[in-house]
Amino acid sequence: VSWDQILSALAAICGTANVLTGRDVSDRFDGWPPSSPLGAACVVRPASTSEVAAILRHCNANGIGVVPQGGRTGISGGARASHEQVALSLERMHGIGPIDRANATITVEAGATLGAVQSAAAAEGLFYPVDIGARGTATIGGTIATNAGGNRVLRYGMTREQVLGLEAVLADGTVVSSMHAMLKNNAGYDIKHWFIGSEGTLGVITRAILRLRPQPRAAATAWMGVASFPQVTRLCELLVDHTDGALSSFEVMWPEFLDVTLRCGRHQNPLTSAHAFHVLVEIGARDASAILESGLAAAWDSGVIADAVIAQSEAQASALWAIREDSPARAAALKPAFHFDVSLPCSKMESYVEQVKAAISQGWPRSRVVAFGHVADGNLHINVGVGDGNSDTRKEVSRQVYGPLGSLGGSISAEHGIGIDKREYLHLTRTPAELHLMRLMKAQLDPGNTLNPAKVLP
Amino acid sequence: VSWDQILSALAAICGTANVLTGRDVSDRFDGWPPSSPLGAACVVRPASTSEVAAILRHCNANGIGVVPQGGRTGISGGARASHEQVALSLERMHGIGPIDRANATITVEAGATLGAVQSAAAAEGLFYPVDIGARGTATIGGTIATNAGGNRVLRYGMTREQVLGLEAVLADGTVVSSMHAMLKNNAGYDIKHWFIGSEGTLGVITRAILRLRPQPRAAATAWMGVASFPQVTRLCELLVDHTDGALSSFEVMWPEFLDVTLRCGRHQNPLTSAHAFHVLVEIGARDASAILESGLAAAWDSGVIADAVIAQSEAQASALWAIREDSPARAAALKPAFHFDVSLPCSKMESYVEQVKAAISQGWPRSRVVAFGHVADGNLHINVGVGDGNSDTRKEVSRQVYGPLGSLGGSISAEHGIGIDKREYLHLTRTPAELHLMRLMKAQLDPGNTLNPAKVLP
Repeated sequence: VSWDQILSALAAICGTANVLTGRDVSDRFDGWPPSSPLGAACVVRPASTSEVAAILRHCNANGIGVVPQGGRTGISGGARASHEQVALSLERMHGIGPIDRANATITVEAGATLGAVQSAAAAEGLFYPVDIGARGTATIGGTIATNAGGNRVLRYGMTREQVLGLEAVLADGTVVSSMHAMLKNNAGYDIKHWFIGSEGTLGVITRAILRLRPQPRAAATAWMGVASFPQVTRLCELLVDHTDGALSSFEVMWPEFLDVTLRCGRHQNPLTSAHAFHVLVEIGARDASAILESGLAAAWDSGVIADAVIAQSEAQASALWAIREDSPARAAALKPAFHFDVSLPCSKMESYVEQVKAAISQGWPRSRVVAFGHVADGNLHINVGVGDGNSDTRKEVSRQVYGPLGSLGGSISAEHGIGIDKREYLHLTRTPAELHLMRLMKAQLDPGNTLNPAKVLP
Repeated sequence: VSWDQILSALAAICGTANVLTGRDVSDRFDGWPPSSPLGAACVVRPASTSEVAAILRHCNANGIGVVPQGGRTGISGGARASHEQVALSLERMHGIGPIDRANATITVEAGATLGAVQSAAAAEGLFYPVDIGARGTATIGGTIATNAGGNRVLRYGMTREQVLGLEAVLADGTVVSSMHAMLKNNAGYDIKHWFIGSEGTLGVITRAILRLRPQPRAAATAWMGVASFPQVTRLCELLVDHTDGALSSFEVMWPEFLDVTLRCGRHQNPLTSAHAFHVLVEIGARDASAILESGLAAAWDSGVIADAVIAQSEAQASALWAIREDSPARAAALKPAFHFDVSLPCSKMESYVEQVKAAISQGWPRSRVVAFGHVADGNLHINVGVGDGNSDTRKEVSRQVYGPLGSLGGSISAEHGIGIDKREYLHLTRTPAELHLMRLMKAQLDPGNTLNPAKVLP
């Protein structure tokens, strides 16, 4: 069939106004986000699960690849489409609700933004704990498809742990609805876990029922200087224990982090003297300040912290978080920079970072390596500036960063997924048997390779 | 091939002493547990993952069904074997450790008992939160294969949420090792979730890395009388909110529960007056008593509880839990009794229980229906005594209990799994599309139907 016929069929499903082509497509993909789609033959915007099913049925029957798109804020290229593919945007399916207060759950359509879901929960005095910087644009469907992490995984888990019910559409248009709302449901294989984190390659997520939590009544934030990594891990153990699980964030910054980030001039050093490691923590609880103060006192008594400041206002807390989250400042200081998102057991992080630094400084004597991360959940972000940003250099640097992870039991992707950009490294932390099973699953659920072709699997 | 040849081959893999036959098999399966295996052609006891792989390879090649067995404490018949099948016991693979304190993880072999893992964690000041009555016999592998729940799911999640890394052996002997130890690992499809909760039908779980938590320094327990179910749900919301997530158990007992359970004469009524609902709660935290007292004060001020008693000692707390957990007392009072384990959103539980009661009392005027459960996690246990225990009656009662669940978004199995006993009801709360995908998965991973044949899928 011709593209004209495809476009007509899609228009018959969704209405002409919801099949974007030409200039409407190029405008949409112009410049943003950084790893934006190349484009698409068209962008189709269904309004319902049955429209999604009809689109997939048609494309699958005609051998057309379909790239599901949420907020397109992912940074591994998972939503990138080519000019021969149909981009399927869930943007019109943004319904939120109902909220079941007694059951502490919310029903949402995939295209609702993460921020809108957080707000809807908060309006009922409840809390959706997943949070990432792109909250205003990223969609719930996208966060489920990529199993989004963020800063509160230590306490609340990944997105996977929040999903109680899920509806997805298979490549052939079959609607698989598992819209249950209970924490316990051991009736056969738990199919929703096949789709969560599969980056749109096995099904298009259309709806979900999410678990909500009580809204923490107060938060308390502190910034600490710590003399060594073993003391960092002891601090983490101590605070997790002391706070009875109320510790939601434990962000660790390696020595180079502050130096590089402060160079932009937008931030003040929270502490007056120099420290090897900096740690930013957040506690959410009714008496968060008291818990944090007593926790820091215990840490001080144990000699694991060298200095600390507790935020005295929301503005101060925001200023501390702004240092941690100022990726543009780091990108500018290291420019051109390569960004990595890996995970490994925190007991092995210190030596791993040393190994990576040594290898990179050997290859590029004037390089800078900036490590930071959530640590307690195994997640380490590494920014590397070596002086040039071409793709061969990126590959060489990637090999240095990813290379040691296999033998350390680590992963080449903690929370950003694989998309297109990390496919060629997947074998470094997944075994041949795992890759074989992944391919079997893809072949079984999408034998025509219609859904997000060439993503995730090499 | 003959059974003699099979037995010789298994003996060559594991040693003659680890292939039990004849009297050794019948003794092992004699009388206990209640839903015990019928028997088995033999019981084979491998000592390592590679022995498990060799056994499966051999049985798969020769068309012999293999039934993986842990502690055989499941009550849906998932570990039941026939005389034409090989029972594969993980009992010799009971290694525990190492524990990584900084990372808060423990590596275990599948045959270690849940209780032994709990103890090993506690010895390091850490905590494995999954807990069920059969802890002394149930194995970690069995709890993973069945995604065990228990009383602390509200706070810590099901077994699935504790499993960071997993090793399983496929029917053809392929070892699939995903022994990672991080909370964050978005590198491709998360294969371990395919095996967790699949009741031994997709792979034999051999090892795991489990997440550990800080040991709650203290626990506080209370028993409350509540006048209505809406007040029960308000109490739950209030306590979850008030305790900042430290509420680990919220057990609700319907009116008939206490009457039936106290009949054995072993327990005292914790409260002096009669109440419609009884609620047992447990909080784990450093200052658990203070949190519980202030929570109960808030509940009292809000008018949601009519009476309450706080345990003043561990002995008193144990006495309260003994009432909740005295299944034998209820079984004796209702004898012969049918036991059900369902889940549904807690906002729909009251009307559901009324509906079930009405239907059963219409069919069996002298019946007793006893409902109780964890409620906040959606789990309801229902014991029914109608005067006879034959299998036709069981089927009729099952239809009354399971029948309404589909339209309520519920599940025929909250935590006990499907095994053999619930297969014929699976379609009541799973759609044809879900069942189709489950069958596809089974056919893909175990095309010879070697692993736990006839379990889970109808």
